[in-house]
Amino acid sequence: MTSMTPASTALPDGTRRSASVAPCLPLATERLALQPLDVTAVRITDGPWARWQAANRTTTIPHGLHWLEKDGVIDNFRRLIGESDAPERRGWVFCDSDLYKVLEGIAWDLSLSPNKEWNDRVAEATALLARTQDDDGYLNTFVQAGLEERFGNLPRGHELYCAGHLIQAAVAYARVTGDERLMDVARPFADYLVTQFVGGGRNDTDGHPEIETALVELYRYTGEASYLTLARQLIDVRGYGVLGTGLFGSTYFQDDVPVREQQSTVGHSVRALYLLAGVVDVYLETGEDALLKTAERQWASMVGQKTYLTGAVGSRFEGEAFGEPYELPPDLIYGETCAAIASLMLSWRLLIATGESKYADLIERILYNVFSASTSLERDGFFYVNPVHRRRARPAAPAGGKPLRTDAPGTRAEWYDVACCPPNIMRTIGSLTAYVSTTTDDGVQLHQFLPGTIAAETAAGAVSLTVATDYPRSGIVAVTISKTPPAPWSLALRIPRWSRGATLTVGGERIDANPDTKGYTVVRRTWAVGDLVVLDLPLPVRVTVPNPAVDAVRGSAAIERGPVVYCLEKPLDERARLAGESVDLTAVEIRTEGVLSAEYAPDVLGGSVIVHVDAQERSGSGWSAIGWAEVGEVTPPTSRNLTLALVPYGLWANRGPSEMRVWLPIAFDSPTLPHGRS
Amino acid sequence: MTSMTPASTALPDGTRRSASVAPCLPLATERLALQPLDVTAVRITDGPWARWQAANRTTTIPHGLHWLEKDGVIDNFRRLIGESDAPERRGWVFCDSDLYKVLEGIAWDLSLSPNKEWNDRVAEATALLARTQDDDGYLNTFVQAGLEERFGNLPRGHELYCAGHLIQAAVAYARVTGDERLMDVARPFADYLVTQFVGGGRNDTDGHPEIETALVELYRYTGEASYLTLARQLIDVRGYGVLGTGLFGSTYFQDDVPVREQQSTVGHSVRALYLLAGVVDVYLETGEDALLKTAERQWASMVGQKTYLTGAVGSRFEGEAFGEPYELPPDLIYGETCAAIASLMLSWRLLIATGESKYADLIERILYNVFSASTSLERDGFFYVNPVHRRRARPAAPAGGKPLRTDAPGTRAEWYDVACCPPNIMRTIGSLTAYVSTTTDDGVQLHQFLPGTIAAETAAGAVSLTVATDYPRSGIVAVTISKTPPAPWSLALRIPRWSRGATLTVGGERIDANPDTKGYTVVRRTWAVGDLVVLDLPLPVRVTVPNPAVDAVRGSAAIERGPVVYCLEKPLDERARLAGESVDLTAVEIRTEGVLSAEYAPDVLGGSVIVHVDAQERSGSGWSAIGWAEVGEVTPPTSRNLTLALVPYGLWANRGPSEMRVWLPIAFDSPTLPHGRS
Repeated sequence: MTSMTPASTALPDGTRRSASVAPCLPLATERLALQPLDVTAVRITDGPWARWQAANRTTTIPHGLHWLEKDGVIDNFRRLIGESDAPERRGWVFCDSDLYKVLEGIAWDLSLSPNKEWNDRVAEATALLARTQDDDGYLNTFVQAGLEERFGNLPRGHELYCAGHLIQAAVAYARVTGDERLMDVARPFADYLVTQFVGGGRNDTDGHPEIETALVELYRYTGEASYLTLARQLIDVRGYGVLGTGLFGSTYFQDDVPVREQQSTVGHSVRALYLLAGVVDVYLETGEDALLKTAERQWASMVGQKTYLTGAVGSRFEGEAFGEPYELPPDLIYGETCAAIASLMLSWRLLIATGESKYADLIERILYNVFSASTSLERDGFFYVNPVHRRRARPAAPAGGKPLRTDAPGTRAEWYDVACCPPNIMRTIGSLTAYVSTTTDDGVQLHQFLPGTIAAETAAGAVSLTVATDYPRSGIVAVTISKTPPAPWSLALRIPRWSRGATLTVGGERIDANPDTKGYTVVRRTWAVGDLVVLDLPLPVRVTVPNPAVDAVRGSAAIERGPVVYCLEKPLDERARLAGESVDLTAVEIRTEGVLSAEYAPDVLGGSVIVHVDAQERSGSGWSAIGWAEVGEVTPPTSRNLTLALVPYGLWANRGPSEMRVWLPIAFDSPTLPHGRS
Repeated sequence: MTSMTPASTALPDGTRRSASVAPCLPLATERLALQPLDVTAVRITDGPWARWQAANRTTTIPHGLHWLEKDGVIDNFRRLIGESDAPERRGWVFCDSDLYKVLEGIAWDLSLSPNKEWNDRVAEATALLARTQDDDGYLNTFVQAGLEERFGNLPRGHELYCAGHLIQAAVAYARVTGDERLMDVARPFADYLVTQFVGGGRNDTDGHPEIETALVELYRYTGEASYLTLARQLIDVRGYGVLGTGLFGSTYFQDDVPVREQQSTVGHSVRALYLLAGVVDVYLETGEDALLKTAERQWASMVGQKTYLTGAVGSRFEGEAFGEPYELPPDLIYGETCAAIASLMLSWRLLIATGESKYADLIERILYNVFSASTSLERDGFFYVNPVHRRRARPAAPAGGKPLRTDAPGTRAEWYDVACCPPNIMRTIGSLTAYVSTTTDDGVQLHQFLPGTIAAETAAGAVSLTVATDYPRSGIVAVTISKTPPAPWSLALRIPRWSRGATLTVGGERIDANPDTKGYTVVRRTWAVGDLVVLDLPLPVRVTVPNPAVDAVRGSAAIERGPVVYCLEKPLDERARLAGESVDLTAVEIRTEGVLSAEYAPDVLGGSVIVHVDAQERSGSGWSAIGWAEVGEVTPPTSRNLTLALVPYGLWANRGPSEMRVWLPIAFDSPTLPHGRS
C-alpha cells in the first residue's frame, strides 16, 4: 500500500506541522504504510467500549482529579508559589506526571465531546503550571522544592520522564482544542532541554524513557527540528552505561546495549517499550532503517517469548522487568498495566510503519484481556499487577486506600502509591478511536471491530462507513458504505490470526475472506452508498496450548474464543456456577476432547459470553503431607466429572476477591497432547 | 524412648545450668525424646564434610574476618570510642550481627580443634565490644551512632535481632571454651532488655525474630529464668499487629496471627523459622503443648506444600517470603540460604522433641542439596538465592565485589551487600557434629551418616562408635562398637523415607532393616567391642514427580539418588559431557522408562556420582515466533535421542556460570505418568 499525504500545515519557514488530531501523527509520510485517522473521524457508538469511554468522562477522570488533590500532587505545584500551606512536597519523585497524564486523558476525552468543565480544569491547571514554571522554562516540583539539583539524579529522578508527559499532554490538548496555553508551558521547557542536552553537549539521559516519543510528537506539532534532534540524541546515548547500575543493573534502564544492537526486550518493561515507541517515531521521521529493524526484532522476540496470552508483559516483580525467554509464570507475573499500554503504543507505531496485521492482532489481544482486566466494571478501580493465576483469593483493596503496587490486592484498588496506571488508562480510553482504522491512497483499513462510524479521505475521495457489530459476542461485522466517491477504492478488514473459515458477504455474495500477505482481506470496487460488507468470523471455543519451552504452564491449556481469553474463577456467581462452588481449583483438569460450548449470559458481569468445558476434579490423590513422591509410590487419584463455566479473563475479580486461573491442567488421559499434536 | 538426664550443673540457688557444648541444649529433660550430644562427642574424620569443616577454619572464617574489616562492620564499633576515623557508620542497620555470627562460627570451630589465633581474635573483638557497650549494657552501633533512638524502630531496626546473635555467640564461646568474657558483654545487654521489656511492660517486639531462641539458650547456660520469661513474652505479644504493616504487611513479620493459632509458615521465611525455633525452645523448657503443636503443624504444612525438593524454602523474592501452598516456581525461587539453615535449626529442635525421623530426613535433604549448593567448593563463594532452574547463564559474580542479594550472580559471590548468609554457613558447618547423633536412656541414635567417631553416655554406661562410610556415594554405613558397657543398649539407625529394601548385617546375619514407628531401625543387645553393624541402603536412581498441585513443574520429573538431588547443567565438563554441549536445555525431555544409571566419576567436581538418563531433544518444533498455539495448529516436533549426564545439584555452578535445571520435562509418550502412576 502507498500512503496518502497526511493532513499537515505549511509553516512560513517552509517546514510543515501536522494539523490532525491523534496520539501519533507522523509528519514524514514516505515511510508510512498506513495513515492514522483523526480520532474525531471515528466514533464508537455502542457497546462496552462506548460505555467505557463515557465512564471515563463521568467516573474515571473525576476520580483521578479527586486523587490528585487527595495525594497532594497539585499542592506540590501550589506550595512552590505560596498557594498552598502544605509543609512539604508529597509523593514520589515522578508524581508530577500523574497530573500531566490526567490532563492528557482530559484532552482526548474532549475529542469525543465538548466539555466546558474540562476546559476550565485544564485552564486552571495550566495557569498553575505557568506560575510555577521557572523563567527559563524548567518545571519539576521535586527539583524546585530543593530536593535535588537539576539533572542531579538522571538515573532515578524522572525529570525528562515528567517533562515528556507534560509535552504529550500539551500536544494532545493543542491538537484537540487548538488552545496552546498548555503548549506555552511545555514548549519553553522543551527548548530549555534542547539547550542543555543538545547545546550543552550532555551525553546522558533519563533513567526512564518517555520523553523520546513526546519530543517527536512536539516536533510533529511544531515543525521545530531541534526536538527531533534531541529525541534522537537521547536514543543514541543510551546503551553505554551512562546511567550507572542502580539497584538492578544497566539492563533495567536499557543502558547495557545500544538500542540498534539490542536483540530482545529486556529490563524494566515500561521503560523498554516507551523507548521503542520513541525509536519507531524517530524512524518514521528520519528513515533510519536500523531503528525500525531493532523495534521489529525486539517486538517479535517479545511476542514469541515474553508475552502472556492476555497480552501482559513484564514477568518479574523484581525490577518490574521482562524475564528470560519463556519465563512466563502465571501466578508470580507482574504484568503491569502500564507495560501493556506501552506494548499497545509500540504495536500501533509498528502497524502504521509496516501495515502488518500482527501488530493490530496484539493490540486486540491487549485490549480485550489485560487492559480490560486492569479496570473495574465501575471504572473506578484498577489493577497494577495482572496475574493469570490467583492461587488464593487475596484481601479486597481497602476502601479509600492506596496500596503499594506490589501488594496486589484481591480487587481493584481506587488508586496506588505509585499512580502511573490509572491515568495511563484514562488517556488510552480517551484516544481509543485512534486505533480503529487507517487510510492509504488505496482505501480504508479496519483494524478493530467496534460498532460506530468512520470518516476517511482516500485518493478517490471522501469515504464514510458505518460499522454494526456485537463483536466479540458474535463474529459478525457489518460495514455499510454511507458515503463514497464514484471511483474505486479498497476496503481492507483485518483477519485475526486465530481466525479460521472467515467469510465475507459483499453484495449478497459470500466468499472466503482470505487474508493478503499483510493479514487483511481486501475488497476493491466502486462502491455505492448503502453497500453492505459483512465479515463473518467463526468464533468456536479454542483450546490453546503453550510452547513446550514455557515451563510454568506445561501440561496445561487455556480456553479462548475470538480475541477473548477465558478463566476459571471461584467463587462463581449464581449463573455461572454450574459445578458448584466447592470445586477445588488446585485439583481441576480439563478434558480437551469434551464439550466446549459458549453461551451468552445477559446476567453475568453485565452480559458476557460464558464457556462450558468438560473437566474432572481429582480427589483422594494419595498425596499426603509431602509435595514430592517417587514414581509409583502414590495411589492413583480418583476423580469426578463436572462441567466448568468459564468467564472472560478481562472481567475477573469484579465480584469480590476470587481464586482464578487461565491455564487449566489437561487430564492426563485426555487425547489432546500438550505439544500441539491432536 | 525415655530421655536420659542431660549434663547440667546445680547452681547455689537451686537452679541448674547446662554444662554441655552444643547449639541447642535443653535444660528441662522431661519433654526430650532425644538428648543432644556434645559437639565434641562426635568427630567427622573423613570425606567432604570433614574437608568442609577444615576449610571453614582455613578459608571461610578468615575470608569472613577480611570482609568484616573491608565492609567497616568492625569499624562501626571502633569509631564509637574514637578508635577509628571512619566518618560515618557503614552498612545495613543489622550488620553488627555479621560480626556476632562470625564469632559464633569461630566458637564452634574451636570445638573441633584448639586455635590460639581464634581465641585471640575473639578476645580482641570482645574487648572492643566491652569498650563500646553503654554502661547499662546496651550495645548497637546503629543506635549508638545516633541514627535511631533505642527501640525507636523495632519493626525494622533489628536491635533485638542483633542482640540475639550476640547472645548466641557468647553462649557458644562460653560453652566451648569456658571463657565468659564475651558472656560478660552479652548478659548485661540481656539483663537490660529484661528490665525494658519485662519490667518496663512493653508489649511490642522486634520485626525480625531471632532473640527468642537466643534467650532460651542464655537461660539454659545461666539458669536465670528471666531470660526464658522474656523469650516467652516476645513470642506471646507477636501476632496482634504490634509491628504495623511496613512494606509487606503484618504477615511478613508473622504479626498477623498469634503463633499458637497459625496454621502454616507465612511471611518472610527466615523470620518465620527463627521464630518457630524459639517456639520449640520455649516449649522444651516450659512444656506448653500448644507451642509444640503449632511448630509441628507449621512444619508439616511447610514440608508438604512450601518446600523445594532441594530443601530450599521461601519462594518469593518479594518479601523474601513463603508463597502460597504449592507455589514453588523453579526459576523465580528466592530460596535464601539462611532460610534453609533456619529450617534445619527448627527441624533439629522438633527432632529432639519428638524423636521422629522425618525431621532428620529434612535436615539431610537440606544439607546435601540447598546447603551444599550455597557454598563454592573452594568455600569462599556463596549463593544467597538458590534457584533450581537457571534458564540462562548469568554473569559471574564480580571478583572482590559484593552483589545485591537480589541480583543473583551466575557464580557464588565472595560476599553480599546483605551479608547474613556466609556467617550463617560458618556457624552451621562449625557445629555440624551436633546434628549427627543423640542418646536416650535406651541407647544411641544415628541420624546422619558421616564417617567418624561418636562417644555417648547411655543408661547402661559409656559407649563409643566408629562409623565407616562413603555415603552417599554408596549406601553402606558400617558401625563398629569401639566401647561398650557389659549391659544391653540399643543402636538406632535412621531409615530415610526414600529408602527401599534397606538391610542390616549384625554379627554376620543380614536382616531387613525395617523402621519402627519413629523411622529408625533399632538393634538392642549386649554388645562387645569390635561388633560390626552394617546398614546397607540401596541407592537406585529415582524418578521423582511433583504433587499435581505444584503447577510450576507439571509434567516434569526430577532425578534423585539417595539424599542427592541431581541437575542437568550446561556447559558440562569433559567427563560428563556425553551428549555434547549443544544440547538445548529448553528442548530436553527425559524418557522415564529409559536407562537410569549411576557412575562414580573421580574427576568430576572433586569426585562425584554422576547419573545417566535417556532423553530426547526436540527440534523443528513447529513453533515459530509465537508462544501460544491452538491445538492441532503446530507441526509435531521431531526429536533426537541422547543420553544426559546429570551432576549433584549441590555442586552446580562450580565450573563457571551455567544453565541448569533440576526438573526435566517428561517426554509425552514416555509411559511413566506424571501423576505418580506408573
